[in-house]
Amino acid sequence: MQRYFIHQNQIESDLIHITEGDSHHIQKVMRMQIKDQILVCDQKNTYRCEIVAMLPEEVLVKIVDIDSTSKELPVEVTIAQGIVMREKMETVIDNVTELGASYYLPVEMEYCTARFSQEKKDQKMIRMNKIAKEASEQCHRTHLLSVLEPVSFSSLLSMSKNYDLCLVAYERSTKDDSIKKLLEKKNYSKVLVLIGPEGGISEKEMMLLDSANFHRVTLGPRILRTQVAPVYVMSAISYVWEENDDNI
Amino acid sequence: MQRYFIHQNQIESDLIHITEGDSHHIQKVMRMQIKDQILVCDQKNTYRCEIVAMLPEEVLVKIVDIDSTSKELPVEVTIAQGIVMREKMETVIDNVTELGASYYLPVEMEYCTARFSQEKKDQKMIRMNKIAKEASEQCHRTHLLSVLEPVSFSSLLSMSKNYDLCLVAYERSTKDDSIKKLLEKKNYSKVLVLIGPEGGISEKEMMLLDSANFHRVTLGPRILRTQVAPVYVMSAISYVWEENDDNI
Repeated sequence: MQRYFIHQNQIESDLIHITEGDSHHIQKVMRMQIKDQILVCDQKNTYRCEIVAMLPEEVLVKIVDIDSTSKELPVEVTIAQGIVMREKMETVIDNVTELGASYYLPVEMEYCTARFSQEKKDQKMIRMNKIAKEASEQCHRTHLLSVLEPVSFSSLLSMSKNYDLCLVAYERSTKDDSIKKLLEKKNYSKVLVLIGPEGGISEKEMMLLDSANFHRVTLGPRILRTQVAPVYVMSAISYVWEENDDNI
Repeated sequence: MQRYFIHQNQIESDLIHITEGDSHHIQKVMRMQIKDQILVCDQKNTYRCEIVAMLPEEVLVKIVDIDSTSKELPVEVTIAQGIVMREKMETVIDNVTELGASYYLPVEMEYCTARFSQEKKDQKMIRMNKIAKEASEQCHRTHLLSVLEPVSFSSLLSMSKNYDLCLVAYERSTKDDSIKKLLEKKNYSKVLVLIGPEGGISEKEMMLLDSANFHRVTLGPRILRTQVAPVYVMSAISYVWEENDDNI
């Protein structure tokens, strides 16, 4: 069934106003009719709805039932990554969206070989968020992953105060930095995970991350590339925090 | 340091005979000299070696020390996957190699949209194994992942008897099929994981898999695509079976 993402202010009691591009899509692209059904997500629930009116500027649908089974991780995860080449960034955004991340944050770091050029930034942000929207729809999420505007490394350090767990993937971590030990404590609500760019993380950056209370974690004994590491972390988080907690 | 994969029969006491393409690579491409050092892997250990002789057909190196810290998963994992499009297959092979899988097995399944054409098979196998070799070198593995020749679905069912745990990722699994419950038992030596093709797994195939003692497992509450599911499973296996077991 076709799925549309809306804002909560579009809901009015048991009716939902579908507007703009989505209204056009329903009427002109899908050529739906009165009584046809669609799924509508408001970042919290998924509603099964029936079309009750077609107006030139909007489609009015009536909520038939609510699917409140959560497809969302019980914790908000932000994947921060040193800016990487476009194809890799797109793959990572696509994959971590499927695995339940809430935000993707590109970070300017010392060993980045790729940059966000100022003139292409807006266009790039639109494209990246479109990829996230499509991946969210594909995997039946109720929330969209947001791709945030790139930040400097020092901004990342300041932002980190707003999270209750900050991790940085670092191949030279000692055995003391167990991702397991950290993840087994389940009382987090906001988690930030930093993955370096292709060139890795500089020693100076690591020192600053240490001071900002980032925990260094290793992701198994092999060296993972920058596009695989975020998928490993998100899979581990999903594995530990979702599905059958009683069976651990 | 440059890394080369050899067969064990190339080792003679503390000397190793580097032959064929690798000998050419050392002498003509890298233009190394006597006393230069290389890393040599024999699917078990990594040896740091010093070049002691350059002959027209081979390079003779002497073992300086052995790095026996394992980069390998403590269990042999075969990722079997319904045949998918070339780019996706290459990405999966690349990613699961990094995550420690031993074998990749393409399987002919009912809903496959891609096929291995007979005339291009040899060429394809060479290319897929080259991708696995490069990924193994990149992530410092001592074993190469082997890409196996495609098999029919019924061959997969017969082969499954040789494994002590067989899993199939299936989105409609009930809560009883906990991947956690299965993975927490750690006494496996050979694990087979089947991932369906883009089109999914047919009901008939699921029935046959059930009879062949495959365990249906879900990978979190979201629907993962065929190229992300194997990465999730390998990450979970690495997370559970590697690194700091004492801290669980």
